[in-house]
Amino acid sequence: MSLFSLPKISPVTHVLRDQIQQKIDTKTKPLGSLGALEHVALQIAEIQNTMAPRLHHPKLILFAGDHGITEEPVSLYPKDVTWQMVFNFLRGGACANVFAKHSGITVEVVDAGVDHDWDESTNSLINRKVRKGTSNFLKTSAMTLEEAKLSVKTGFELICESQYKETNVFLFGEMGIGNTSSASMILSHLTGIPLTKLVGKGTGLQKEGKEAKLQILEKAFQRTGKLTDPMKILSEFGGFEIGMMAGSMLGAASNQKLFLVDGFITTAAYLLAFHLDPNVKDYAIFSHVSDEEGHIVVLDHLQIRPLLKLNLRLGEGSGALAAYPLIELSVKFLNEMASFADAGVSDSGERV
Amino acid sequence: MSLFSLPKISPVTHVLRDQIQQKIDTKTKPLGSLGALEHVALQIAEIQNTMAPRLHHPKLILFAGDHGITEEPVSLYPKDVTWQMVFNFLRGGACANVFAKHSGITVEVVDAGVDHDWDESTNSLINRKVRKGTSNFLKTSAMTLEEAKLSVKTGFELICESQYKETNVFLFGEMGIGNTSSASMILSHLTGIPLTKLVGKGTGLQKEGKEAKLQILEKAFQRTGKLTDPMKILSEFGGFEIGMMAGSMLGAASNQKLFLVDGFITTAAYLLAFHLDPNVKDYAIFSHVSDEEGHIVVLDHLQIRPLLKLNLRLGEGSGALAAYPLIELSVKFLNEMASFADAGVSDSGERV
Repeated sequence: MSLFSLPKISPVTHVLRDQIQQKIDTKTKPLGSLGALEHVALQIAEIQNTMAPRLHHPKLILFAGDHGITEEPVSLYPKDVTWQMVFNFLRGGACANVFAKHSGITVEVVDAGVDHDWDESTNSLINRKVRKGTSNFLKTSAMTLEEAKLSVKTGFELICESQYKETNVFLFGEMGIGNTSSASMILSHLTGIPLTKLVGKGTGLQKEGKEAKLQILEKAFQRTGKLTDPMKILSEFGGFEIGMMAGSMLGAASNQKLFLVDGFITTAAYLLAFHLDPNVKDYAIFSHVSDEEGHIVVLDHLQIRPLLKLNLRLGEGSGALAAYPLIELSVKFLNEMASFADAGVSDSGERV
Repeated sequence: MSLFSLPKISPVTHVLRDQIQQKIDTKTKPLGSLGALEHVALQIAEIQNTMAPRLHHPKLILFAGDHGITEEPVSLYPKDVTWQMVFNFLRGGACANVFAKHSGITVEVVDAGVDHDWDESTNSLINRKVRKGTSNFLKTSAMTLEEAKLSVKTGFELICESQYKETNVFLFGEMGIGNTSSASMILSHLTGIPLTKLVGKGTGLQKEGKEAKLQILEKAFQRTGKLTDPMKILSEFGGFEIGMMAGSMLGAASNQKLFLVDGFITTAAYLLAFHLDPNVKDYAIFSHVSDEEGHIVVLDHLQIRPLLKLNLRLGEGSGALAAYPLIELSVKFLNEMASFADAGVSDSGERV
C-alpha cells in the first residue's frame, strides 16, 4: 500500500474460534448439517470477534462509471444506459432497489465517473466523479496512474465517513456499460488466465458479438503486454467504479467490517484489492457465481465457492442482495437456535 | 388416484405465458439476466394465473413420525430425538423456527406417527397420529396398505382445511429419526437407482455406519423384491410423515397452490405424490440439493435443478426456508421493478 498511505488491514483474529465452533456444534442439529451457513456464521463472528454477531445498518453501495472502450463494439447496450440506470436507482425502480428493500438494505449510488451532467433531481447521488468516463483502452490508458490511485483512495475514504459508522456490513455493486471488458482485462492480467476463457456475453452478446469483443480485448492486451502491478492494471483498463469498489473493500476490511462480493466485475475489484492487501480476504463473502462465463473460471482459480449459483448476470449488486438473506439466517441460527442442553434433546454422542 | 377418491390435479394453465414473459423481458435488466429467478417468477404467475402474483400467509408444515427400522443400527441419533425435536419446534428453538421467523412464515407441527404420549403443553401440535411409529421394515411391512392410504389422505385433507384457505404457498418439512432409510428405499423402488447410490450419512454416519445401513437396506430390498406401486412402496417402507407429506403436496396442487420441496426425504414424498398424480409437478419448486449423497443422484435422474446448494442436511424444512427469500425476490422483481419504458432506459434493441 505504499502508493498512498492507507492503513494496513489486520487479519481476522481467531481467539474465539474454538468457542464459536463449540456454540455452532451444540445447536439442536446434526453436526455440520447447516453446511455453508455454518462457515458464514463462523466468519462473521470472527470478524466481529464476538460470540453473538449482529448485522447493523446494511448498505448497498453502487458505483457507476463510463468506459471509453464502448467506442468499440463490446456491449449490446448504448453507453447512455449507465446514466439512465443511475436515475433508475435513484428513483427506486431497478432490481437492486427492489431486492434491497426486501431486506431493509439502504441503497447508495456513487458517481465514480459517469459521462453525464446531473440536474437537481439527483441530490441523493454521491458525487465522486473522477472524470466523465475513462479513455478507450484499445488506444490508450483508460486513466492516469494518479486517477487510478484517486479512485481507490476515494472508495477507501468513503467507507470511513461518519455516515457509515453504524454500518457493519456492506454490499458492493456496480453499473457501467462496457465494464465486463475492463473486468476481463484486469482478471486476465492478475490471474494469468487467457482472455478466451474470461470474455463472455456481458449484457447479452451472441456468439459473433462475443468473438468481436474478444478480438478487441486481445488487441488491448497486446498494447500493454502482460502487467502485474494492480494500480498500473487499473490505470490501463479502468474503470473508475472498479477502482472505487476496490478501495471500498479495503476500507471495509480496514474497519474490520464484513462485505459481500457480487459478480464478475465486483470480483475484478476484489482481486485488485487483494493484490493491494491480501488481508482483505478475511472480510469478504462471495455471494454468487454469475452467468458471465469467466466468473466460474476465476472463482475456481481462486478456490472460492460462493453461496449461490442462480445464473444471474445483472450486476448492480443483485447477486449480493440475493445472498444477503442467507447471511442473515447464518447470524440468526447462531444467536437464536436452542442448544441440545437448552432443549433437552439427546445428542448423538459423536463428540463424547 | 383410484385407491381413494381424491380429486385429480389440474395442470397449470399457460394462457398468460407470453404476457408474463413479456413483462419479465421489459424490466430494466438485460434479457434473461435474473436467471433462475425469472423461471420462478413465471412459474408462480402461471400457478396463480395472474400478471401480479402474491405470496399470502406462507406456512411451513413439519410432519413428524417414528420408524421401526431404528431397531437396527441405521441412525446416529436415538429414536427419542423425534419427539424431543417436536418439543423443540413447539417451543421455537429449532432451526426451522429461527429461519421461518425471519421470513414471517408460520410453523405448524403435525404428529403423523410419533412414538410418544404428549402432555397438555403441546396443545398447538396438530394430532394426526396414525400409529406410534412404523414397524421395522427389515422384518415386515412398515405399515398396512390401509395405513398408507390413510397417511396420504390425511395429508391431503389437512391442506384443504379452512385454516389454510388464505395460504397460497406451503413449505413442507419433516422430522423422523431413521427416515433417510425409508426415503432411500422409496427412491430406489421408484427410480430404479441402486441403493448403493442412495444410502448416505443421514444425520452424520461415518464410513462404517453407512456400510452397515446399506447392508440392512439391501436386505430389506430382498424381502419385498422390486415394487412399482407407490402406495405399496409407502406401506412397505414408511413412514407416516412421508405419506402425509405426499398427500399434502397433492392437496396443495389440487388447490392450485405453490409448494416448496425441501431435501432428500421430502423429495421421496414428492416422488410418491408424482407417481400418484404427475400434474403435482407444476406446483412444486425444488429448494436445494442437500448434502445427503443420494439427493443429487435423484435430482439428476429427475432432471431437476433446485435453487440452492449449501450442503445442508438438517431436514425440518430448513432448505425450503433458506430458499424462500429467493421466491419472495422473484415475485417482487416481477411486481415492483420498472420497465424500460417506465424508467426511460434505452433497451438493447435485441427484441426489436
